[in-house]
Amino acid sequence: MSDAVRDFRFAVNVTPREGILDPQGRAVEQSLPHLDVHNVSGVRVGRRVELTVSAADEAAARAVVERLAHELFSNPLIEAFEVVALGPAAAAGVRA
Amino acid sequence: MSDAVRDFRFAVNVTPREGILDPQGRAVEQSLPHLDVHNVSGVRVGRRVELTVSAADEAAARAVVERLAHELFSNPLIEAFEVVALGPAAAAGVRA
Repeated sequence: MSDAVRDFRFAVNVTPREGILDPQGRAVEQSLPHLDVHNVSGVRVGRRVELTVSAADEAAARAVVERLAHELFSNPLIEAFEVVALGPAAAAGVRA
Repeated sequence: MSDAVRDFRFAVNVTPREGILDPQGRAVEQSLPHLDVHNVSGVRVGRRVELTVSAADEAAARAVVERLAHELFSNPLIEAFEVVALGPAAAAGVRA
């Protein structure tokens, strides 16, 4: 029944794969000396997508997120992603 | 002593503030029907920055990350950020 559907909030972290050139990360590293920061390395810049899925249970919701992460949010050739459950979506606010 | 310095890996999640227009999130939402996805809402697209800080302890390392998140990774007027400790950096690999 449709009233058994609940909202689940997830985040998808998309980062450049190891060994793949990351121009944004390199740009950050090159700007650090100008900020007098000399103890930072290994900067990688990616994307973070947060979304709410309405589904019967968390497994079904996660399956939707995994599919979108693979097909829409990332380029699997050069990027890796991880899906993180943020818990039940609040009743208001997150459904922008 | 400098040999007491250790490497700490952090992530900074940068997301548009609530109420701030998020054109990328809107674009994702508008593309979902074409993928036959009808149960997703509240999409917000931000950045994720991962970095390694060499410092005497985690508190000192986190202070560097907080400063960079505020000054370099985000625009505080329109974006919020959270700092997440990813644990001690691996000896190799993350120092790209």
